Amino acid sequence: MKKPTILVTNDDGIFAPGIRKLIEVCRKIGNVIVVAPDSAMSGMSHAITVKTPLRLKKLVEEKDYLEYSCSGTPVDAIKLGEKIVVRGKPDLVVSGINHGSNASVNIVYSGTMAAVVEANIDGIPAIGFSLLDYSHSADFSAVDDYITTIINNVLTNGLPEGVCLNVNIPAVKKEEIKGIRVCRQAKGRWDEDFDERVDPHNRDYYWLTGVFTNGDTAEDTDSWALANNYISIVPIQYDLTAHKAISKIEEWEFNTKAKD
Amino acid sequence: MKKPTILVTNDDGIFAPGIRKLIEVCRKIGNVIVVAPDSAMSGMSHAITVKTPLRLKKLVEEKDYLEYSCSGTPVDAIKLGEKIVVRGKPDLVVSGINHGSNASVNIVYSGTMAAVVEANIDGIPAIGFSLLDYSHSADFSAVDDYITTIINNVLTNGLPEGVCLNVNIPAVKKEEIKGIRVCRQAKGRWDEDFDERVDPHNRDYYWLTGVFTNGDTAEDTDSWALANNYISIVPIQYDLTAHKAISKIEEWEFNTKAKD
Repeated sequence: MKKPTILVTNDDGIFAPGIRKLIEVCRKIGNVIVVAPDSAMSGMSHAITVKTPLRLKKLVEEKDYLEYSCSGTPVDAIKLGEKIVVRGKPDLVVSGINHGSNASVNIVYSGTMAAVVEANIDGIPAIGFSLLDYSHSADFSAVDDYITTIINNVLTNGLPEGVCLNVNIPAVKKEEIKGIRVCRQAKGRWDEDFDERVDPHNRDYYWLTGVFTNGDTAEDTDSWALANNYISIVPIQYDLTAHKAISKIEEWEFNTKAKD
Repeated sequence: MKKPTILVTNDDGIFAPGIRKLIEVCRKIGNVIVVAPDSAMSGMSHAITVKTPLRLKKLVEEKDYLEYSCSGTPVDAIKLGEKIVVRGKPDLVVSGINHGSNASVNIVYSGTMAAVVEANIDGIPAIGFSLLDYSHSADFSAVDDYITTIINNVLTNGLPEGVCLNVNIPAVKKEEIKGIRVCRQAKGRWDEDFDERVDPHNRDYYWLTGVFTNGDTAEDTDSWALANNYISIVPIQYDLTAHKAISKIEEWEFNTKAKD
């Protein structure tokens, strides 16, 4: 069987330990092409670079392995990867392993998951992986078998049209992981705050801070799964339509013309 | 009745004609507080600023009107607006009027709509407005009554929990607008390309370009509505879970432990 071509990216930057682990796992499965940001791009969400041109730098070329860094965001990396490096569609896009959670509402801010969604828009099966440990020295030793299993399942079964996967892994020892659960995104949110300071020129400035709060602790959520030492998989779509709300809003008084 | 407090932002920057029109309309409805980026932030999606601190600058203070510019992204503007300026929740957040379409998949890249989604996450009724004309000299003269009607409907009826609105307006004369339609997001996508160039130092660089393509022309889509001179309203949610896919993925072979 032909080895699959796997495009790998992340948002912590190409030298982050998380992407190094993901590359190691993927090289045992297929031909790997890495196109990842040359610096940390956390919190960049689905941003694209339109004001400046993009750069692409080949770092490694080996049998069945290519590695490029790029300027720009994780979504830029996917676009460059498809159009300039692969010059076609890879069989799979994987992103991560993110240092830190992309469960619950974190997905909205995540560059890691935006890269996955971008591939999904382009019709490519795609998976984002995150470990619930923000530190550079995060322990990725428990993840190999689980990531391999999930990737092989996607390569074998495919994904429904318009659907990609958000995989989060609890930061616990391998023997403590209870298994995998398919979940919905918990309705948590960040309760933001700003650390207000005054600079040496007597002008105010603000550091964004915040605390994650989650009142949605149902057993079918990703937050519950992770808190209970399960790996969570949330199937994700980029159709943001709140379909159930359409008929409700159609009842509003707009104007006579709209009633035609 | 107490006048509503309306927080206004955009992604084209505080001096763009689109936000000036939106401010004009909103000042006839309520107390208006503007917190908008000090430069163009198109394509920034839901990016937040975590590497640098944020700045906030008061530009205007009048009766029932406050105007601030800020560094950072549209989502930063909402966070600063809520936490530093309003110091509480406004009754409504509006964003725009964007110069250019945020219909179909454009919403995924849009800073205008990310600001709206951010307010939605915080439980504030929120609406994004876009006109299908990218130019600085876009004609916003047809929009006043429609925007007023939509805002008043949201203030009167509220919005379902977790739902905000994406409103797009065709770039035609007022008498050509046929009315308002509540729609779903069309499944279009950008077919990206890169304009490959060589700099004076003989290094390659790439400008992101692309063509919007849409094979989803059903009458219930925003793209259809706009092409037929209707204003489109798409109710939007930030729960990205593909709920229908959960049971399908649960059938996969993961591991025995996951079957508990």
